[in-house]
Amino acid sequence: MANTADPGASAGAEQDEFALIAGLFAPLATHPGARGLKDDAALWTAEGPTVLTCDAIVEGVHFLPDDPIDTIAQKAVRVNLSDLAAKGAKAEAILLCLIWPQGRPSNDLVQFAAGLKADIETFGFALLGGDMTSTPGPLTVSITALGRLAGTRAPARSDALPDHDVWVTGTIGDGALGLKVRLGHVTASDPARSFLIGRYQKPQPRLGFGAFVGSFEGAAMDVSDGLIADARKMAAASGVGIALDVAAVPLSSAAQAVLDSGQVALSALLSGGDDYEILFTAPPNRRADVLAAGQKATLPVTRIGRVTGGAG
Amino acid sequence: MANTADPGASAGAEQDEFALIAGLFAPLATHPGARGLKDDAALWTAEGPTVLTCDAIVEGVHFLPDDPIDTIAQKAVRVNLSDLAAKGAKAEAILLCLIWPQGRPSNDLVQFAAGLKADIETFGFALLGGDMTSTPGPLTVSITALGRLAGTRAPARSDALPDHDVWVTGTIGDGALGLKVRLGHVTASDPARSFLIGRYQKPQPRLGFGAFVGSFEGAAMDVSDGLIADARKMAAASGVGIALDVAAVPLSSAAQAVLDSGQVALSALLSGGDDYEILFTAPPNRRADVLAAGQKATLPVTRIGRVTGGAG
Repeated sequence: MANTADPGASAGAEQDEFALIAGLFAPLATHPGARGLKDDAALWTAEGPTVLTCDAIVEGVHFLPDDPIDTIAQKAVRVNLSDLAAKGAKAEAILLCLIWPQGRPSNDLVQFAAGLKADIETFGFALLGGDMTSTPGPLTVSITALGRLAGTRAPARSDALPDHDVWVTGTIGDGALGLKVRLGHVTASDPARSFLIGRYQKPQPRLGFGAFVGSFEGAAMDVSDGLIADARKMAAASGVGIALDVAAVPLSSAAQAVLDSGQVALSALLSGGDDYEILFTAPPNRRADVLAAGQKATLPVTRIGRVTGGAG
Repeated sequence: MANTADPGASAGAEQDEFALIAGLFAPLATHPGARGLKDDAALWTAEGPTVLTCDAIVEGVHFLPDDPIDTIAQKAVRVNLSDLAAKGAKAEAILLCLIWPQGRPSNDLVQFAAGLKADIETFGFALLGGDMTSTPGPLTVSITALGRLAGTRAPARSDALPDHDVWVTGTIGDGALGLKVRLGHVTASDPARSFLIGRYQKPQPRLGFGAFVGSFEGAAMDVSDGLIADARKMAAASGVGIALDVAAVPLSSAAQAVLDSGQVALSALLSGGDDYEILFTAPPNRRADVLAAGQKATLPVTRIGRVTGGAG
């Protein structure tokens, strides 16, 4: 990657790192603007607006130290792609800032690159540039993602209008339950166990549905901090109220089974975070269009509430 | 900033953080594409290519834990602007990913924002977006910077041609000496002491000269890992050799005084890093143009070597 050297490292370690990075990451950077990750900067040309987002994930905060390292690369990518999806954008490119713990084995770097490669192939974005540096602290992955609008509009959090419907894609609470399963706070059997852990470790950015979300004349955001907290943010940004029909919030069969077992309360699912679904609003006369978009994206979309006039 | 919440933090701490961030950073984000830092993503529209770079700095690796927190913000900004300058680009915007130690006092965040504000005013870029998260580890600042080409060309590291001159802006070794002074490995008296520490804590991105560097038909890169190491990288990327005239390498009077005192060897200055000057090549028939560009940018430029035919 560009600017890979770490002034705190020995020259020998630096040489090894260069060779490793050149061998692992440069082959993934096929976009001509990436300059083979051998330059200080990348070039990016786009017609129309570029949608830009940056999000970092930190070991012990956003993922567990013993999460598979390839899924850590993928989570870092996907939380950013989820932001693009919620803004109605297609994923085009990323810049990867990899802050790597001193002494973490180089084989982990090989697996990290493999996870990144798999997601480049899955989602079709370019690795445009990056930086690698060492840290005495936890593994930290900071990514800037670039997208292109699928339509003509990037729906803002602040675009919710009174009397519109509130919708959400997919299912809510799985990621938070996956973390609880990993921490041993909740028990579940396969296949539910694997499903929930997978939802925590490898979120699914809703890019397919995101291609339509700009067309609904409403607000949109991704659900990353819990449905309740994020709905509150949308309401505050829009200067409206949002009334959620809690019973309507879609749960996976795995989450429903854990809920039925009495191990968690529904409120834990609604406020747990790590969902990476799209929360959006649309006028009631667009209900058929919203459902049709869900069918095209092969993703369930569920009406879970209503925008109300008053703030709060 | 967008996506500010940290699932590991308590709801109360989160609320405080939101209020703090909204109060400190949102007023700095006046670009319409930033959406007041209240959305998941930013919008960026540019005619022609955008030059993109991302670099992270880590406490204990790239800066000292007791460096003034406003200068840490500024160093993070400036190492990125230095990359833009070396690619012939003007600084247009940044995205800031701030990975903040749990328990670091909130007054430090106020000072960090003040340092950022000062550099926004000095360099005239936009704060386009960002992310803030907590970490159990060291303060880490990851920035993605966006620039616009001042001319028509972003000189690559790989553009060095045989028989061209090798040049460098400013003076070499000051930043490395500033670190040694801070660590007590070297003693110096004011004003030299303050000058050298300032060069370590607040590098000067050479954006003024960078506006011309694309016009010289050669290679360019910023010197961040030491003049010798970076010249070697340029030679390797270009498949040429670079012969440096070590005696010609420009030193500040402060660095010369430390060298004369016998506390360090010249080699330490040439390999120390943290220079953030521009190393570039140009054909011999452009010498007058290079010197004229230096005068326009009120920055000394010095011819320090020659590109040779053989690799190495």
